[in-house]
Amino acid sequence: MQEILVMVEEKEYVKARDLLLKNNEVDIAEILEEILEELDVDAAIIMFRMLPKDVSVEVFSYLPSEDQVDIISGITEREISYIIEELDFDDKIDVLEELPANVVDKILEKTTKEERRLINTFLNYPENSAGSLMTPDYISLRDNMTVGEALAHIKKEGMDSETVYTCYVKEEGRKLEGIVSLRSLVIHDDNMKVSELMSTDYVYVNVYDDQEEVSEAFKKYGFLAIPVVDSEHRLVGIITVDDILDVIEEETTEDIERMAGVMDGSDTEYLDMGVFRHAKNRLPWLILLSVSLMITGSIIEQFEATLQQVVALTFYLPLLMGTGGNTGTQAATLIIRGLSLGDIELKDTLKVFWKEFRVSIILGIVLSAFNFAKIMLIDRESVQIAITVCASMMAVVIFAKLIGGMLPMLAKRLGIDPALMATPMISSLTDMVSSFVYLLMATAVLGISL
Amino acid sequence: MQEILVMVEEKEYVKARDLLLKNNEVDIAEILEEILEELDVDAAIIMFRMLPKDVSVEVFSYLPSEDQVDIISGITEREISYIIEELDFDDKIDVLEELPANVVDKILEKTTKEERRLINTFLNYPENSAGSLMTPDYISLRDNMTVGEALAHIKKEGMDSETVYTCYVKEEGRKLEGIVSLRSLVIHDDNMKVSELMSTDYVYVNVYDDQEEVSEAFKKYGFLAIPVVDSEHRLVGIITVDDILDVIEEETTEDIERMAGVMDGSDTEYLDMGVFRHAKNRLPWLILLSVSLMITGSIIEQFEATLQQVVALTFYLPLLMGTGGNTGTQAATLIIRGLSLGDIELKDTLKVFWKEFRVSIILGIVLSAFNFAKIMLIDRESVQIAITVCASMMAVVIFAKLIGGMLPMLAKRLGIDPALMATPMISSLTDMVSSFVYLLMATAVLGISL
Repeated sequence: MQEILVMVEEKEYVKARDLLLKNNEVDIAEILEEILEELDVDAAIIMFRMLPKDVSVEVFSYLPSEDQVDIISGITEREISYIIEELDFDDKIDVLEELPANVVDKILEKTTKEERRLINTFLNYPENSAGSLMTPDYISLRDNMTVGEALAHIKKEGMDSETVYTCYVKEEGRKLEGIVSLRSLVIHDDNMKVSELMSTDYVYVNVYDDQEEVSEAFKKYGFLAIPVVDSEHRLVGIITVDDILDVIEEETTEDIERMAGVMDGSDTEYLDMGVFRHAKNRLPWLILLSVSLMITGSIIEQFEATLQQVVALTFYLPLLMGTGGNTGTQAATLIIRGLSLGDIELKDTLKVFWKEFRVSIILGIVLSAFNFAKIMLIDRESVQIAITVCASMMAVVIFAKLIGGMLPMLAKRLGIDPALMATPMISSLTDMVSSFVYLLMATAVLGISL
Repeated sequence: MQEILVMVEEKEYVKARDLLLKNNEVDIAEILEEILEELDVDAAIIMFRMLPKDVSVEVFSYLPSEDQVDIISGITEREISYIIEELDFDDKIDVLEELPANVVDKILEKTTKEERRLINTFLNYPENSAGSLMTPDYISLRDNMTVGEALAHIKKEGMDSETVYTCYVKEEGRKLEGIVSLRSLVIHDDNMKVSELMSTDYVYVNVYDDQEEVSEAFKKYGFLAIPVVDSEHRLVGIITVDDILDVIEEETTEDIERMAGVMDGSDTEYLDMGVFRHAKNRLPWLILLSVSLMITGSIIEQFEATLQQVVALTFYLPLLMGTGGNTGTQAATLIIRGLSLGDIELKDTLKVFWKEFRVSIILGIVLSAFNFAKIMLIDRESVQIAITVCASMMAVVIFAKLIGGMLPMLAKRLGIDPALMATPMISSLTDMVSSFVYLLMATAVLGISL
């Protein structure tokens, strides 16, 4: 790869192209990305235009959309039309979605009326819906075909279909009647009927279903493809498993980022995102957290008199707040992940409560004992302080584990994304509670009046 | 589903079975799980034994392994042998791995010598290696076959193969020569040679590669199956995409849990894990964090005199520590995810540093301004305190974003899992630094000598 970059930099394009073509199309796309990033757009465009036509279309489909737009801007209209025409339908829609409207119009002018209508329909499905993921290029059969006729049909249409491994049997009026796998066609005799082989209790998704539901179905059933139907149960497209791998990745990233208090939802990569956009994505939670941390500050302020008399109390404040945050985050993370995988459901709320309660007792005892020893033996503070800190710790750990376990469940019940109930949310709550519990207990145990 | 549960509870097994059989095998497995969980093992075993034999094998393969062991314990040896024999090879290995050794021995006694040797080889591949995921049931072809001969071969062998959609062309000595898709066989003429259609620059994995590398390859290239070869490039098995969906889920869960300071690595579901095991998984980080929080406490102790004189300083300690933790966590999470998706690489270290630095300046300014206004207008504290808090906040945000961005990169360079550099680690570091910076600045600005 480094070698190719050097060649391109030294303008030895033909040598670079020959070396480039020794790679798989996915890898060629990766090297072009690298050229775009390390060198410049012009060099990448030159290399792209030097690829054989059929290779260039495939390579184009593997480029990230920002890079596709860069390439498009540097090639001729005829080249653009060729690429768009040759792309698989679902990739075509993805590219058209990213291009500026005037470029899209120019491209659509050159397509047939039928194709234009289809593209417009697909462009109008909401982002992240099954409709936005599907392709209309599938093999469709009739139930009265024989296996031999079906295989002949696949031989004719198979080149342009997204997959040939699952075929769809349609009634008059485009209603989906059943599905049949190519495996089943290939291993059965030529004169059997498709109707004898097709399965009619297939799983399908609706065109407006969210992509998360679609990926759940793939994970649950292990399909290679899933049919997408409209409200009248007409087959409008199919979604294949390779597109779902991207969806799973995207959804997980969104979850993980939300759990850390980063709001984005676009699939722009970290390095491609501008500094202001990064700041904007992170600010809302930080401001909210500032407010909650101020409240924690005000709670502490109420105990000014206590702190004034025993400043040593302050030294253990981070310990209690931090332990609350950490134990709560552990519970919340496990529950959020369990909910998103379907391992935990709403009906398990009591089980979660009971489990977290018992776990918190064990952890509370161990952590309190550990800290009691440290406070007495190393810090050599009074036994009153040690008792205050450890009793508060017990209370804080129990509270944190329960709130960490219950808040995601509550969010789920209210239809809010449980991922929002992770670290930032949990630790602000535990901060408030732990400082309050600790200082209240200190005031009581140390017998200091407020 | 609820209906079936009620029928089973009322011992109306036949009615329950008939209703059960209206479902897809995946769903039947789910309902059996529910019966095991809500009712008891015996009821689940009765229902399982009432399923038609072929259905029962498939249902069995979809059960989680703990439930498989439960079912196995309640059925006859003959039934066990039947199920094991009929399972797909990779599912068979998964089941055998979970069963107690004496049961495995009994099952192996009944298999042929050849099969027993193969099973033992597969059982010995390390957990999480490509070898532990693969199956030896694939279609293998010779390069001198015609398409017609290849299809006839697939017709004969296709029933027992994990997939027929990618076929593997082997030389003498089991060396993998090329791969050819069923699509390509089906759309080409019967008298073409396999050697003309096969692709020889296929992607493969080694039998000892980690499952994470395997899933990367699937995500990158969008395959349905990938060949697994040994050190002499002999084809030993294949891995199909449906098994990879589970791997991706498992790896992501491990990452997410590590990021929250939970150490487990098994794929036991939350609700199925015992309380002590939960406590054990969470304790190591909590103890470590206790120590770091104690250090933070000691840092604060050094400023006892300052705090004694201006107790108000304590009220803003949570704000600074919390903001440090939150901003650092955001950066760390984005970088960890970026590294795990391959969007960010080690060579991007400087870019990450520069981006986080600029983001932190923006966020630092906004947060400081917001807090300055609040301290002056609402708290009505002195301007010295406001300046101290806001200047410290600026420093803390910059430090937190940089440490959050750089620690995961450093971990990666050292070969440590970057996921360990998330919330707990980052917030302990920022806690120490923020309390130190804040109190030092307070001491300076307020002109109080230590």
